[in-house]
Amino acid sequence: MSRSQRGRTALAHPDAADLDLLDVLHALSDPTRMTIVQTLRADPERACGTFPVDVAPSTLTHHFRVLREAGVIRQREDGNRRWTTLRRDDLEGRFPGLLDVVSRAYDRQTAGAAL
Amino acid sequence: MSRSQRGRTALAHPDAADLDLLDVLHALSDPTRMTIVQTLRADPERACGTFPVDVAPSTLTHHFRVLREAGVIRQREDGNRRWTTLRRDDLEGRFPGLLDVVSRAYDRQTAGAAL
Repeated sequence: MSRSQRGRTALAHPDAADLDLLDVLHALSDPTRMTIVQTLRADPERACGTFPVDVAPSTLTHHFRVLREAGVIRQREDGNRRWTTLRRDDLEGRFPGLLDVVSRAYDRQTAGAAL
Repeated sequence: MSRSQRGRTALAHPDAADLDLLDVLHALSDPTRMTIVQTLRADPERACGTFPVDVAPSTLTHHFRVLREAGVIRQREDGNRRWTTLRRDDLEGRFPGLLDVVSRAYDRQTAGAAL
């Protein structure tokens, strides 16, 4: 299997109707993953190396996988870059209000911590 | 240390102002723990052996501890029983809307799964 084929095979995305609330809550329960989500709320599509997180590449790959398999993000290959978007409509359709409530609470919490 | 003292010492509860969103999301990301939360939304205070969950006592103790340490529930000893309540006001004050959104989404998801 070629490298690019491997990449494509690995990018499994659950259908919107199959998103599991507990998987999503687990995916959001980590500071690196919440930083990825908050970044994507401000900026709809980003290349993988451009997120403001300070973790090793293998750790970041793990976090993207958790978010992707929970259905929080979608990733696509384009040449040798991987682009990431938030599955905002899918999440809102299945869990109305969840992403907004969590994002606002996290913004408030991190703003409070920085004071 | 007496048994009752040990019990009291073990029941640490974070202050409302110190609740951490990511700890709460993690605490909610488990089916047994969400069942405990949903049960307490319907019935404000319950004795520990009375929750409709099918897990070993040691596992249940673990789940209560995760919820308690995240600030989702409060537990108090009364004689040889331990009573559990949901920290609804503390959660609402710190993370407005979160508990309602998560509970509604979980109700819908579990109702859908039962069809």
